[in-house]
Amino acid sequence: MTETFAIDPALVERYIMDLARHGAHGETGVWRPVYSEAWFGAQRQVEAWMQAAGMETWWDAVGNVWGRVQGTEDDGQGVILTGSHVDSQLPGGRYDGVLGVISGILAVQTLVERFGRPRRTIEVVSFCEEESSRFPTAHHWGSRAVAGAIAPEDLKNVVSYDGEPIGEVMRAAGFDPDAVATAKRDDIDIFIELHIEQGPILEQMDTPVAVVTGITGIRHYHVALRGRADHAGARPMDTRRDPMAAAAEIISTAIDTAHRMGRPAVTTVGRMFVEPNGAAIVPELVRLTIDARHPDPELRELLYARHEAMMREVCNRRDIDLSWTLGAEQPPRVSDPELVETFVDAAREQGLKYLTMPSGAVHDANRMAGFTRMVMLFVQSKDGRSHTPDEYTSPEHAAAGVQLLAAGLHRLAYG
Amino acid sequence: MTETFAIDPALVERYIMDLARHGAHGETGVWRPVYSEAWFGAQRQVEAWMQAAGMETWWDAVGNVWGRVQGTEDDGQGVILTGSHVDSQLPGGRYDGVLGVISGILAVQTLVERFGRPRRTIEVVSFCEEESSRFPTAHHWGSRAVAGAIAPEDLKNVVSYDGEPIGEVMRAAGFDPDAVATAKRDDIDIFIELHIEQGPILEQMDTPVAVVTGITGIRHYHVALRGRADHAGARPMDTRRDPMAAAAEIISTAIDTAHRMGRPAVTTVGRMFVEPNGAAIVPELVRLTIDARHPDPELRELLYARHEAMMREVCNRRDIDLSWTLGAEQPPRVSDPELVETFVDAAREQGLKYLTMPSGAVHDANRMAGFTRMVMLFVQSKDGRSHTPDEYTSPEHAAAGVQLLAAGLHRLAYG
Repeated sequence: MTETFAIDPALVERYIMDLARHGAHGETGVWRPVYSEAWFGAQRQVEAWMQAAGMETWWDAVGNVWGRVQGTEDDGQGVILTGSHVDSQLPGGRYDGVLGVISGILAVQTLVERFGRPRRTIEVVSFCEEESSRFPTAHHWGSRAVAGAIAPEDLKNVVSYDGEPIGEVMRAAGFDPDAVATAKRDDIDIFIELHIEQGPILEQMDTPVAVVTGITGIRHYHVALRGRADHAGARPMDTRRDPMAAAAEIISTAIDTAHRMGRPAVTTVGRMFVEPNGAAIVPELVRLTIDARHPDPELRELLYARHEAMMREVCNRRDIDLSWTLGAEQPPRVSDPELVETFVDAAREQGLKYLTMPSGAVHDANRMAGFTRMVMLFVQSKDGRSHTPDEYTSPEHAAAGVQLLAAGLHRLAYG
Repeated sequence: MTETFAIDPALVERYIMDLARHGAHGETGVWRPVYSEAWFGAQRQVEAWMQAAGMETWWDAVGNVWGRVQGTEDDGQGVILTGSHVDSQLPGGRYDGVLGVISGILAVQTLVERFGRPRRTIEVVSFCEEESSRFPTAHHWGSRAVAGAIAPEDLKNVVSYDGEPIGEVMRAAGFDPDAVATAKRDDIDIFIELHIEQGPILEQMDTPVAVVTGITGIRHYHVALRGRADHAGARPMDTRRDPMAAAAEIISTAIDTAHRMGRPAVTTVGRMFVEPNGAAIVPELVRLTIDARHPDPELRELLYARHEAMMREVCNRRDIDLSWTLGAEQPPRVSDPELVETFVDAAREQGLKYLTMPSGAVHDANRMAGFTRMVMLFVQSKDGRSHTPDEYTSPEHAAAGVQLLAAGLHRLAYG
């Protein structure tokens, strides 16, 4: 007979609302930068829930909070880890990150209550500073520490929006920056991250959950277009070297290229600065950022090659000096095929409607995929909103996510 | 026998370099905000040159400096006025405005030395605050005063970049703001403004001077494009409401429309702000300014109608909320046809190569055209540069401008 891991939606909602009190911002938002009082409050709440669920808990050197249920067989297969983060955008919503931490605790609690200790060791983690909430270049600080990917000089060079080095902020918060290397783990076999979708696809398909087949590859082009400043009245159109005209053509064509390549290709121009930025002056310089993503390694390279060739052609034809630097380079990460199959089987067994789809956002799972077998689960987001107090996931959909996670963990750790 | 009014280029250059010492900025620039010490120094130098040229001088209530040679016949025909301004962009160049003031003084000096007092009264003026050098909304403050177009509340509401009301700054500089109305003149028949071209056309045509047939009409559209902020990775291209995509299409099409309409139509997008301006966020709001100009009243309306219809179509199709406000509205000003003819005849008589062309920039002449017969003269600008320390006009071209101005004044005031 098939076990059902159905969870009470009201219970999930209560956990979410309890955590949302830490750093509550406005009606529905949270403001929870890493190492702040609000963040400490949330991490302590997470630890208390872990303990109540029967887990042994600890904080590591960077502030990740861990809970562990020791397996009955210590056969060297390594740890099965699930979790996400509780730091937020400023302001962010109640679900991003948080849902993965709460789901891990509730899934483990359900399994332990019903079946006792698992055969394989399960851990739950609440990573610190996934969002660059306080340090713009700290991105995935907690999972970087676990991967052993923080260099000693990062403690000085990673600085907050206010200019404080992260090492000093850590020390003031009670952590020992010299001990960062102790946070590295090499005994983790599997990492499972449950997260809100942050896009509209599950809602459009009227589906509560998805098993994520891979995480997109990202590149940022920081583009500078330099022309010649001119008087907006006295300089005829046909003799201008107008970088704004080049920027407009580049933006339109880049967006069209990604659109024509089809889902899940995306290209976004979200950031732009103009100099001198005067209404009656043809600009001298336009700077813009192109964010382009594809989870397929070959199609990603094709997308980038098309963008680069197009920028060169436009700027050559318009007599504009073109330069760019690259940022936010993240290779695509393919989910472990066996884990995808395990969670697809679990969704079928539980009678949950599901999709398989790639992730267009990056997560701690990107970093973890470098040294573990990785899979992600998505839960439906209302209107595809995230990184805003407007983000919302219904208790029923959240409970479906916990059910899928519990069913998959059961197969992996108890089977 | 034809009189020649040829002027020594070295003399013109000496005057320009002398004036450039007041507020000298870097190698070739000036920094001369109205009512500053640098500006007072330049105005006092102008007054001294007027007196040396045989003119009676005075300062009016706002700080315009005037010089006058009384005509021998006081037959009620009104004053023939020439001049421009000596305040500058921050920083600006040595020629914008200054060349018109110096040319007026040198032309009158030449005429009086050679022919004595004119039949009709000639005046030269150095207007204050043409450039909004210190007060962003003061634009053409001196010629507005002469037109009687300054309201008492303007003295409080027009404030400097530092927040000081212009009335208080005037009082601190020794002017009586309550006397502004006394600057109004109703006895001026003709206004002639000589100015650098600020564009590349005379240089392209290898021509030193032009007689200006009219001044362009300007309108600024302050456009707001509101869509929906979304995650740059998780939101598919086909379901976005991206105001940056709409902005790019609007910019490209507006520029193309002006280009296709042909000279002298111009449209410029020089100013843009993006919110939230994050590299990985589809923007919620893009604000941009469209500066669109044409000197022909009917073609100007056609240009505006095309821009407006296009913006509505783009935003309707892309599901973007469109709104705009209008700014910098200036109707076109047609030069007095008889004065254009007078100066064309004078150029031919002097053997000067010349063009007739419209002005794509606005000047004190716009304001003066409301109550006088107006004409402008242009002198070649190197590379079409202005509003920068790089602006340059050769002594030979400047001398050709003085020669044309003197020859025209001779026809008007001595004929």
